[in-house]
Amino acid sequence: MTHDTSGEDSLIARYFKPLATDPGAFGLNDDAAIIKAEGCDLVVNTDAIVEGVHYLPDDPPDTVARKALRVNLSDLAAKGAVPAGFLLTLALRERNEAWLSAFARGLGEDAKSFGCPLLGGDTVSTPGPVMISITAWGRVPDGRMVHRFGAQPGDRVMVTGTIGDASLGLAILQGGAAAAALADEPAARDMLIGRYRVPQPRDALAGVVRDFATASMDVSDGLAGDLTKLCAASAVTADIHLSKVPTSPAAASLLACGAAELGAMISGGDDYEILCTVPESRCAAFLSEAGRAGVAVTEIGVVMAGATDPRFLDGQGQQVALKRLSFSHF
Amino acid sequence: MTHDTSGEDSLIARYFKPLATDPGAFGLNDDAAIIKAEGCDLVVNTDAIVEGVHYLPDDPPDTVARKALRVNLSDLAAKGAVPAGFLLTLALRERNEAWLSAFARGLGEDAKSFGCPLLGGDTVSTPGPVMISITAWGRVPDGRMVHRFGAQPGDRVMVTGTIGDASLGLAILQGGAAAAALADEPAARDMLIGRYRVPQPRDALAGVVRDFATASMDVSDGLAGDLTKLCAASAVTADIHLSKVPTSPAAASLLACGAAELGAMISGGDDYEILCTVPESRCAAFLSEAGRAGVAVTEIGVVMAGATDPRFLDGQGQQVALKRLSFSHF
Repeated sequence: MTHDTSGEDSLIARYFKPLATDPGAFGLNDDAAIIKAEGCDLVVNTDAIVEGVHYLPDDPPDTVARKALRVNLSDLAAKGAVPAGFLLTLALRERNEAWLSAFARGLGEDAKSFGCPLLGGDTVSTPGPVMISITAWGRVPDGRMVHRFGAQPGDRVMVTGTIGDASLGLAILQGGAAAAALADEPAARDMLIGRYRVPQPRDALAGVVRDFATASMDVSDGLAGDLTKLCAASAVTADIHLSKVPTSPAAASLLACGAAELGAMISGGDDYEILCTVPESRCAAFLSEAGRAGVAVTEIGVVMAGATDPRFLDGQGQQVALKRLSFSHF
Repeated sequence: MTHDTSGEDSLIARYFKPLATDPGAFGLNDDAAIIKAEGCDLVVNTDAIVEGVHYLPDDPPDTVARKALRVNLSDLAAKGAVPAGFLLTLALRERNEAWLSAFARGLGEDAKSFGCPLLGGDTVSTPGPVMISITAWGRVPDGRMVHRFGAQPGDRVMVTGTIGDASLGLAILQGGAAAAALADEPAARDMLIGRYRVPQPRDALAGVVRDFATASMDVSDGLAGDLTKLCAASAVTADIHLSKVPTSPAAASLLACGAAELGAMISGGDDYEILCTVPESRCAAFLSEAGRAGVAVTEIGVVMAGATDPRFLDGQGQQVALKRLSFSHF
């Protein structure tokens, strides 16, 4: 566009047009995008991340971009949806070309690898912290989105990957006890920090979730609080065996030396794992299909009738009291 | 949800669940919403507003909410789309119940009157200014979204409503010359401020735009700059007669006494009118249908072949130089 003299448009043209590969994006040359449903339901989700709240100001910009997109892809996967596209709203203090260039590179790589092209967005100036808001959508066959509600008494509670790594990664970046304990273990340290900065959406599990789960959500604000929400929406409760909650070797070694506490790990944020419930009779097939999809899944407890909060039990079957259930902004 | 103890969720339950009337919103009890396309194309758009940038910190909260939604509805109308729903991302410094209550009331009233229900969203904390990001979508028959491109030489340039009121309203709020000139005319003053705070989406014109316009967009960053974008996307240019640019009586009186300047008015932001191009042979029918829809439309110029910027001509046919074309964030 030889006419176009606005700084905002040149910023979009330079950094984001290369990501707008979907025909519905019109090369970011229009005011809106087109989404085709193609006989499916569209599952839509929005999550924002704020500098200093969801990521640290000196986090590498490509990881900030990846996190902004992946927290949304994590939701889509938990709902059983296949990513289809996203809109980006970027509130910036200044036009920092180095930051933007790395941000756009990370975003573009993830958009490509997850099959989720940029369709449009808005770029605004702010005197405050950088904020990145992404709205992503995906497709499911009609009526097949997996809800928070639907868990039945007797269903097994399943969780992907490992829990608590991201909260430990943040603790390390903030110089907590975990940082000192891992001073001589840079690989473990970097793994935990990486889990905080760049979550791994379990997109490979979306189809399996759709086929087997009675209820599902992603764990973003802490396993304890998010399970409480799932139980509330399903009008059930659950017993979770803390000894079964999957932890990484790095987290396990921090737990063993007292530099981490499991209660804090299951109420800390940023796991971005899938929490779902599966009927007992279908657990073996679910675990087998998850294995074929390359996603580790662990059974951590059982759904039960009742309206109380889910219980977290120690090795002796005693309920463990949690200081808080999850991260909350307010 | 008796289980739910998070402040964020209680905030959403109190203020925003009553707005989530669409079945695809699942009462905001899930992690994602469902959009049904129902044989149409979905037109999707996102626009954010930032405290101190797009609205003033002491603007009434219900007007802030209305503006946040309406800037998106304005885009949908210009694209020929009928509103279908929206997602809200709200970044707040604090939980201010009085502000939130008024905000949610204004948002709910507009969601109802424009037929655009809340489908979901995200609420986050920020140490910086409040930011409201809305993603809205609407429906058009397959392939019928009206683009920025498509204007043809000979087409007439049309604009709805009046231009420049909002930028004058902002100037008044900031204590500019317009404030002094209208010191004794509270009705005119309030009208202009109202145009800044609460734009009027031309949703009633969406179907007419779809049936008649060769290109269309909303005027949000200034008539001059937005027309330049439309011409660039369409690979044409245009001549605009400044004397034909529609102004309100309040703006006209400020122009007459020298307290406003037309060049600034056509390059100022926040008009949220529709700018479109219509073939000459169809102008009479277009104007008639617009009249039936209750939307004032004015012909302000003509599209011409060429790759230069559009020209703005005075009463003697001389080109007027503009200091800037439009508002830009960067």
